[in-house]
Amino acid sequence: RIDRDRLWKDLHTTCEWGKGERWGENATDIGMSRLASSDADKQARDWFVKTTQDLGCDVNVDAMGNIFAVRPGMDNSAPPTYAGSHMDTQPTGGRYDGILGVHAGIEALKTMKDNDMETEYPTGVINWTNEEGARFPISMISSGVWAGAIPLEKAYNLREVGSGNATQKSELERIGYLGPLEANHKANPIAAHFELHIEQGPILEASGGKIGAVEGVQAYKWHTITVNGRDCHTGTTDFQNRSDAMLTAAKLILHSHNRASEAGCLASTGILTLKPGSTNTVPGVVQFSLDIRSKEDAALLQLEETLKSEFSKIAQGEEIGGLNARGTKGRGCTVKWQLDTDSPATTFHEDCIKCVEESVSDMLGTSEGPNVQRMTSGAGHDSVYTARRAPTSMIFVPCRDGISHNPAEYCSQEDCGNGAQVLLGAMLRYDRL
Amino acid sequence: RIDRDRLWKDLHTTCEWGKGERWGENATDIGMSRLASSDADKQARDWFVKTTQDLGCDVNVDAMGNIFAVRPGMDNSAPPTYAGSHMDTQPTGGRYDGILGVHAGIEALKTMKDNDMETEYPTGVINWTNEEGARFPISMISSGVWAGAIPLEKAYNLREVGSGNATQKSELERIGYLGPLEANHKANPIAAHFELHIEQGPILEASGGKIGAVEGVQAYKWHTITVNGRDCHTGTTDFQNRSDAMLTAAKLILHSHNRASEAGCLASTGILTLKPGSTNTVPGVVQFSLDIRSKEDAALLQLEETLKSEFSKIAQGEEIGGLNARGTKGRGCTVKWQLDTDSPATTFHEDCIKCVEESVSDMLGTSEGPNVQRMTSGAGHDSVYTARRAPTSMIFVPCRDGISHNPAEYCSQEDCGNGAQVLLGAMLRYDRL
Ligand SMILES: NC(=O)NCCC(=O)O
Ligand SMILES: NC(=O)NCCC(=O)O
Repeated sequence: RIDRDRLWKDLHTTCEWGKGERWGENATDIGMSRLASSDADKQARDWFVKTTQDLGCDVNVDAMGNIFAVRPGMDNSAPPTYAGSHMDTQPTGGRYDGILGVHAGIEALKTMKDNDMETEYPTGVINWTNEEGARFPISMISSGVWAGAIPLEKAYNLREVGSGNATQKSELERIGYLGPLEANHKANPIAAHFELHIEQGPILEASGGKIGAVEGVQAYKWHTITVNGRDCHTGTTDFQNRSDAMLTAAKLILHSHNRASEAGCLASTGILTLKPGSTNTVPGVVQFSLDIRSKEDAALLQLEETLKSEFSKIAQGEEIGGLNARGTKGRGCTVKWQLDTDSPATTFHEDCIKCVEESVSDMLGTSEGPNVQRMTSGAGHDSVYTARRAPTSMIFVPCRDGISHNPAEYCSQEDCGNGAQVLLGAMLRYDRL
Repeated sequence: RIDRDRLWKDLHTTCEWGKGERWGENATDIGMSRLASSDADKQARDWFVKTTQDLGCDVNVDAMGNIFAVRPGMDNSAPPTYAGSHMDTQPTGGRYDGILGVHAGIEALKTMKDNDMETEYPTGVINWTNEEGARFPISMISSGVWAGAIPLEKAYNLREVGSGNATQKSELERIGYLGPLEANHKANPIAAHFELHIEQGPILEASGGKIGAVEGVQAYKWHTITVNGRDCHTGTTDFQNRSDAMLTAAKLILHSHNRASEAGCLASTGILTLKPGSTNTVPGVVQFSLDIRSKEDAALLQLEETLKSEFSKIAQGEEIGGLNARGTKGRGCTVKWQLDTDSPATTFHEDCIKCVEESVSDMLGTSEGPNVQRMTSGAGHDSVYTARRAPTSMIFVPCRDGISHNPAEYCSQEDCGNGAQVLLGAMLRYDRL
């Protein structure tokens, strides 16, 4: 049995480094702002290294700053079974996204040590660098380099968001975490990767579920859509004579939602900018982000192709889905697409998923025995990249109201403890397998 | 006959002060950036004062920096018949909006002088301060103070847009145009106000019209609409569990267009901002501007009331106008309205409208005789406020492609000349009336 109080205490101890916004009355009702390779991230990393070394782990840092802490097994000729996640956060993030997975891994190792457990092969914990992509703007970039999916030079040269000049490489160097180990799955292989994570959505909470055995991660693509029309005066230009880029963008956003709904996919717009931005000028240019997701690559591609063809037609005033039916036909706008991110669907390894489910069964009959359900992750995680090179699965626990990427993100002590217990059990089961 | 070449040359001479973006190859294919009470505005004002004084005018500046240049008539016991407009521009404005009206007024006075014409009563030209509202953010503010519609203190304390600390008063003082005359229609009455202006829309151009005799200005209201939903992760939150403020705003913008279309009104969104602004976060807050216009106050009120009731219902997922028919019903959002500007419909004076039409008739038979059509102004102008206190009308001339508030705004030399000729004729006819 893991020590639920110790886990809770450790987690909130490291959250002293990089504290963000207070959102409630309790001592720990404070969000996190621990950007990758910041001073606060260095403090959290130093704690990680010292704590795992104190447990008797062999700790190595690779060229992307990924930290691998390994507890020897009986036979150390095979690679370790790892728990892995990340300790960096969004600028206005919470205390559980990523952080819980790393802490639960350490708690698992502590529990093994407390019980003098010997594993067949080595076990360990990984802290992946810059999972959020909030400071250096590609998410899961360091597990991506490890998996050979993203070139090291591209990752190194990535400049921080905003006006600063720091790169991913210069900042790793500055905080002393540009390690000697090659950032590569061949040079540094792993046997299996288990990642405990808050669900970041409302599905478990809504169904009274306690543990999600994650079967895979849905596919997603990020696009920037540009609508070009023509600036004109709002008071003097009748609807017939407008090329209204904002009205057109409104139709396209609504249509993307409608088509995604019909196809059982997701479509979301999180960023929208327009020009020139004056109450009495109809905007000539609108740009917006379009994040589309589906469990099936084929369904995502189908949705993307449908929208590509229909957006242009709607913008030209053609009648699709009732969007141009009630208004006045104007002069039309043009639409351009730019692909920013393409993350195909990931399927986790059946062996690992079973280890998670069986680890839950091991707890049944005990007072804390949680239920389990198979589910698909809506968000990308480092496990997407480890899954390309090693058997992988994830364990989800509920987070309150599905809120994540928000200071008020919350996972109860009970759910954190359940997750860590299942993680330990899954690692041990995989080790025996 | 006014001197069309002199008018054209004078206009482009003063446009040396406050030059903006070049948009074409010709010497005068350069936009304007002459914000109210800037150094460039002072240069244009100094030219105005010197030029009208050289014509023998009596020039006075009021407490809002409005400049009144008066050419004496035979009987100077009655107030003057004025031409009036403004010399300030948008930050990315053109050479004709406002500027043409002032120059045409000066050209009219020059023509009277050249021909030794004596008018019954005085005639004059007004340069109104900060019509655009682009630097100090209330449009037509100084004619509004003169008409008693806006309190002097409110106008004085208006701070400049952006990060500066200058106020309308401090800047008028700085450039030496905080005048001694009371800014008030009683202290400084006017007999009639004629304003030549580019149409700023495509109606004249589309119909081959040359002169618009403006009967009035449509009503308009500016609102800021705030949609409140809840931030959530785009990948982990199914549609049922969202309160998507961006999707809701898209529906409301489209619905405002549809309802305005049905009612023969206008609705436009020129500004939209959202929070937090990340590709993978569904926005929890969206704010957008809603500019609605109608020729009839009653129709505008009806549209506003309809939208107020329907926006909330649509945001809550109710089925109105097909907007919620094809998508997935979420948790709903709330909608708040804030009224920023309320400008009721203005009817100009029949005597003044007739003077404009008759002035066009006076030109018929001559080679340059233009056609004339009655029309309503879609945009607000200083004439909206003068109309509250004196007989007023406006003269519209076509502008290319209806483009205005844009460096590429353009009115041909022929159309500028036609407008100035009609302005002179209308002033003389009113004087005799
Ligand atoms: N967990 C997470 O937010 N990852 C970022 C990539 C995504 O939006 O899915
Ligand atoms: N002429 C002009 O653009 N006035 C500003 C007020 C309006 O938008 O109608």
